[in-house]
Amino acid sequence: MTLWVRFIDGKGASACGALESAGVRRYAGERCAEPEPTDEMLPLAALTLLPPCTPSKIVALWNNFEALRAKLGKAVPAHPLYLIKAASCVAGPGAEIRRPARYAGKIAFEGELGIVIGRRCKDVTVAEAASYIGGYTCVNDVTAAEILNENGDFAQWCRAKSFDGFGCLGPAIATQLDYASERVVTRVDGVERQNYPLADMIFPPAELVSRISHDMTLLPGDVIACGTSLGVGSMRDGASVEVTIGGIGSLTNTLAPAAHELPQGQASAA
Amino acid sequence: MTLWVRFIDGKGASACGALESAGVRRYAGERCAEPEPTDEMLPLAALTLLPPCTPSKIVALWNNFEALRAKLGKAVPAHPLYLIKAASCVAGPGAEIRRPARYAGKIAFEGELGIVIGRRCKDVTVAEAASYIGGYTCVNDVTAAEILNENGDFAQWCRAKSFDGFGCLGPAIATQLDYASERVVTRVDGVERQNYPLADMIFPPAELVSRISHDMTLLPGDVIACGTSLGVGSMRDGASVEVTIGGIGSLTNTLAPAAHELPQGQASAA
Repeated sequence: MTLWVRFIDGKGASACGALESAGVRRYAGERCAEPEPTDEMLPLAALTLLPPCTPSKIVALWNNFEALRAKLGKAVPAHPLYLIKAASCVAGPGAEIRRPARYAGKIAFEGELGIVIGRRCKDVTVAEAASYIGGYTCVNDVTAAEILNENGDFAQWCRAKSFDGFGCLGPAIATQLDYASERVVTRVDGVERQNYPLADMIFPPAELVSRISHDMTLLPGDVIACGTSLGVGSMRDGASVEVTIGGIGSLTNTLAPAAHELPQGQASAA
Repeated sequence: MTLWVRFIDGKGASACGALESAGVRRYAGERCAEPEPTDEMLPLAALTLLPPCTPSKIVALWNNFEALRAKLGKAVPAHPLYLIKAASCVAGPGAEIRRPARYAGKIAFEGELGIVIGRRCKDVTVAEAASYIGGYTCVNDVTAAEILNENGDFAQWCRAKSFDGFGCLGPAIATQLDYASERVVTRVDGVERQNYPLADMIFPPAELVSRISHDMTLLPGDVIACGTSLGVGSMRDGASVEVTIGGIGSLTNTLAPAAHELPQGQASAA
């Protein structure tokens, strides 16, 4: 099992490496496509980590955990239900999530498992799907909660979830993960807010990859965010949110205030 | 005014050119970022055109034309309402739209104006927006209509509109367009099905670019599909759909049958 990371090297370029007990071993080759290990070891604490992949799309599941489905009283979906987050929303480990300048409403965190696609994938079976999964990462699927249902005619899933910084990924891509024995734990300012088992997924990873690959071509680095479960909530400006999955690590991001604050009570640009 | 196209050159590589009366003048440089004209002129009829840009995202508007809004009895939106189509759905002029193998239901066409972003753009004003618009193209925003509301809890906008081939763009990018004096005309097998004025937009292009740039960073080549108006309908397998906008040209695509047909009456993979 390898834990792949991307980071900014001493010359300001993006680089690829693997976490080892002594630090990060640099690999030659940016794209983590059969990169070669080098002898260069870097101390993790000194590195600025980047998002571990650069997705062309983020497919984000809704209603994919049994416990949350039951609580909300929704039907079991017959097919994965998802929206697409703009790729421009990706943020890496440690990055600030900047509150949108024109939005003063609630911002929600959602700790999730992310599937990272390893190679181009279309119309694959469930049995084939595992070989197209490059690994797994942690996701904080951030949402401007008051935009979502602001318009009565049209649920604004894509807008509410695509602000720059609202797709937090990292810290690493674990190439192997016994997901069914792991849990997603989300802490806000150190207080546990989510702690749910990945075994509770309605459509598990191989099923998601197979089904979604019948809808669209999945490309290397694309992310399928598997959806969240109980405990979703909002975070105040300045809050630190940590999403932890055993076998992957902890993804921490802070919510920074807007660059220009709005008058009180004005929830959106509308 | 320039009409930019992309095409496959004699060596099988993608190339950039401009439409002139004598044919397509090849430009040096792929990305249409300040490319240099060459002396090479190619006959248009002999070229296989590619999508005129390679968007990182397609932002697709809903309820952005007054006539359709009034017909459907919807409220005037306070902010542009949109979904995101996966970039993997892009198809070029003349390309076949392949019916998804697991979907036997209605497939709808929507002729639309597409704004093509010219340079990286975030938080721009309406007055600034025009300088970030690289040009305009025709869009056929294809939809697997029966998937959209298949699930009562969650409108599947992104899934229904992101199948490979469902984002038809082209034939060219017109760098200048007096959009308010132009109309979108959609013909299915030569029969006119849509003919609506672009002056009827609720949020016109500069307003869309400004507002959406406050939601997310727009990148060069990104497409904002401005939404459609009256006359949307479905097309049978084998149908040819042509979207024409004066000043841009005509985008024609055909709907090809699925590679593997389903039993009659089975609308989706669900």
